[in-house]
Amino acid sequence: MSEEELDDNKEALGEEDPYGVSQEQIRQIEEALEEERPKRVRELIEPLDAQNTAVVIEYLPAQLRQDFVELIRVQFDPHILPELEENVRDDVVSQLGVKDLAAALANLESDDSVALVEHLDEDMRLEVLSSMPISERVILEEVLTYPEDSAARLMQREVVCIPSFWTIGDALNFLSRSSDLPKKIYDVFVVDPKHAPIGSVSLSALLRTSKTAKISESMEEDVKSISVNTDQEEVAMLFRKYNLISAPVVDEAGRIVGMITIDDVVDVIDEEAEEDIMRLNRVAESDFFAPLWQTSYKRIRWLIVTMVNTLIAAGVVKYFESSIEELAVLAVLMPVNAAMGGNSGMQTVTVTVRALATRELGLANMWRAINKEVGVGILNGLFFGLVMAIIAGFWLDNPMLGGVLGVALIFNMLWAAFAGVLLPIIIDKLDMDPAISAGPFLTTTTDVLGYAIFLGLASFFLL
Amino acid sequence: MSEEELDDNKEALGEEDPYGVSQEQIRQIEEALEEERPKRVRELIEPLDAQNTAVVIEYLPAQLRQDFVELIRVQFDPHILPELEENVRDDVVSQLGVKDLAAALANLESDDSVALVEHLDEDMRLEVLSSMPISERVILEEVLTYPEDSAARLMQREVVCIPSFWTIGDALNFLSRSSDLPKKIYDVFVVDPKHAPIGSVSLSALLRTSKTAKISESMEEDVKSISVNTDQEEVAMLFRKYNLISAPVVDEAGRIVGMITIDDVVDVIDEEAEEDIMRLNRVAESDFFAPLWQTSYKRIRWLIVTMVNTLIAAGVVKYFESSIEELAVLAVLMPVNAAMGGNSGMQTVTVTVRALATRELGLANMWRAINKEVGVGILNGLFFGLVMAIIAGFWLDNPMLGGVLGVALIFNMLWAAFAGVLLPIIIDKLDMDPAISAGPFLTTTTDVLGYAIFLGLASFFLL
Repeated sequence: MSEEELDDNKEALGEEDPYGVSQEQIRQIEEALEEERPKRVRELIEPLDAQNTAVVIEYLPAQLRQDFVELIRVQFDPHILPELEENVRDDVVSQLGVKDLAAALANLESDDSVALVEHLDEDMRLEVLSSMPISERVILEEVLTYPEDSAARLMQREVVCIPSFWTIGDALNFLSRSSDLPKKIYDVFVVDPKHAPIGSVSLSALLRTSKTAKISESMEEDVKSISVNTDQEEVAMLFRKYNLISAPVVDEAGRIVGMITIDDVVDVIDEEAEEDIMRLNRVAESDFFAPLWQTSYKRIRWLIVTMVNTLIAAGVVKYFESSIEELAVLAVLMPVNAAMGGNSGMQTVTVTVRALATRELGLANMWRAINKEVGVGILNGLFFGLVMAIIAGFWLDNPMLGGVLGVALIFNMLWAAFAGVLLPIIIDKLDMDPAISAGPFLTTTTDVLGYAIFLGLASFFLL
Repeated sequence: MSEEELDDNKEALGEEDPYGVSQEQIRQIEEALEEERPKRVRELIEPLDAQNTAVVIEYLPAQLRQDFVELIRVQFDPHILPELEENVRDDVVSQLGVKDLAAALANLESDDSVALVEHLDEDMRLEVLSSMPISERVILEEVLTYPEDSAARLMQREVVCIPSFWTIGDALNFLSRSSDLPKKIYDVFVVDPKHAPIGSVSLSALLRTSKTAKISESMEEDVKSISVNTDQEEVAMLFRKYNLISAPVVDEAGRIVGMITIDDVVDVIDEEAEEDIMRLNRVAESDFFAPLWQTSYKRIRWLIVTMVNTLIAAGVVKYFESSIEELAVLAVLMPVNAAMGGNSGMQTVTVTVRALATRELGLANMWRAINKEVGVGILNGLFFGLVMAIIAGFWLDNPMLGGVLGVALIFNMLWAAFAGVLLPIIIDKLDMDPAISAGPFLTTTTDVLGYAIFLGLASFFLL
């Protein structure tokens, strides 16, 4: 690399991934693709592993992405697919076509294959499945009978089970001799004759316990079995709480049918947090890689809620039109009250939604949480009520108007705190997602009340 | 449990943790504490492990929490401490006092001890350290010389290193005979004579490779070493990208000094996502367990930004006071424009902030991202401009006014999209956190423009 290029490199956004592909390398690949120099492209990507090839694919613009995938189609590394962001992956998968996709899937572990297949549309899914070797196909078809986001969809079928009457030595022998075991094992699970998990032994325990010791005496009895139907969010909770690395998955009869490993759970944790971030800010999901039209359409759907919200608020203002006609300065202050209520309420909503998601908030401390938020609402309402009364009073040279704003602020911020903690709790109880609906509901009320209280008090006292 | 109690139980918020303590159990413990029946409390918590005892402590109100900690002080399980939320942990730690805390720390792994000690205030930290056994103390003191949020703070010092000239059999023997190895090992690291990592062997590979094979030929050479000074966010990225379970940490000279395991990284991932959620919604960090006064104070600091924002917007409206005096209905529509701009802009900010955080957005695709957002802004501006023009025109029986609102909406939503993607990028380039400042900056501009464009156009065309 020339010095100039190095400088260019330093200007990259954020920090560069020291283990990954640099922005400069991506630029070079893009250039080589544009200039249609396949040999140069191959040279540039030669040192890249599946993870970094995935990064390159994500960064390329749509047209060049297609050219790139065509170029690597022949020796396509199937491990690229699970690393791709969903929107990008859908494009690449449909470009690969049934035959190449089926071949790729056959080389992935069953959990990764499921994640890919479950996103295909019905027709392609059937085609792909029927092009796969029968043994892999049966496994996938069975897993697909379980609901999306269930533990069954996360698990890999490959799992090591041993009986409790073995010795540590037996287990070690078994592991060293079996050829079709999963690539990465962290724990082996001890099962009873009905194949139900009754314990687990970590590999490090296996290695460090006397070979003559009985498994039944060396195993950890407190094994956290996960039912196939458990929601993935629940699975993530469990792994986090108990710092698990792997856990067995059992069917309705309690028989072990697979295992979930921490790397899959990390993806779930990411997904769930991302969902809350996006929903609290009125985006369904990150659409960074989604095409323009789709992004526009999805965001419009969420903004319609905002539109209805503001129209209701506008209706309230309309009701006080004659007051504003008489005293136009009311229009200057009325947005202050609505905005302060909305923003302070969203603070409460955010903390409450997350406390519910992380199970820090439950029945046992619900009333304490509500009391505390109301307390914060009173304190902060008093603070901003006083400050704004003084500022507005002096600025507009109208102490009475400042006073009205102050009182309105106290009421609206108190309401915002109360509704901000109560709405998510109620929505959660109704089994809906508070991250989606608590915000819009809340801001509608703080807007309506914000305008109504301020304009109402002002009409009463000042006109 | 009586049937009544079971019903009560079902009403709990969210779903119950099937492996954990139930809301009903917490209520019973609370009751027993209130009734000062220590024997009953002990009975109730007897079956609970450290994780669930931590849950109980978090759920209890402050006074009962103290009573509870007093009750379990004698056989206090140190593993409870790392599981507690920060605010709660601080309380418990200061209640435990220097002597009991030092004893607890000595029984934790070094990474957990560091996480506890780094939050103590200077005085208590020194006292606690000097009460600890010298061997543990030296390790902690050294780790504490590294910056907060660095890889060094995350790592545990306990790590297994082997030379490359050994055989697999040598390594197995070493593992089974050494007594002071870390409890949980997933990989052993191969080091050169200078103690620099040159490879890794997973335990499952160790178990399944012939005992006579050379380590140098069996090891994974592509080991991802992490420097002590690497930021924890970077560490999380690396683990996620490469699905790592453990990785070696090296000092400035490249010597291995510890290892980071996935369970610590899961905590970091949680922390970082939580931070973005909170900051985007104007809370510094989750204050769910923080005391009332502190919560109020911290939220006020963030709301002051909102206050300044709304005052600037109010200043703009003031400028048009005479227009509003003439045509009061302007006050009815002006919040619509500001709100639609603010909300659509926050959609863009949210997606952009997260794309920066996850490194999906870099120099190589920056212009494409900006183009796309501007495209979405134009489309959505046109959509809502048209819809609102019609609604407002008919509602207020003033087509011209509807038209002015429509045009103002197009401009404001276009600006919101442009600023919504550009502001986070610029803030990120300036090495500040876009999750904190992009939102307030953006909404200030969409408010100011929202009012100015609408009122300006209306004054020009309608008055």
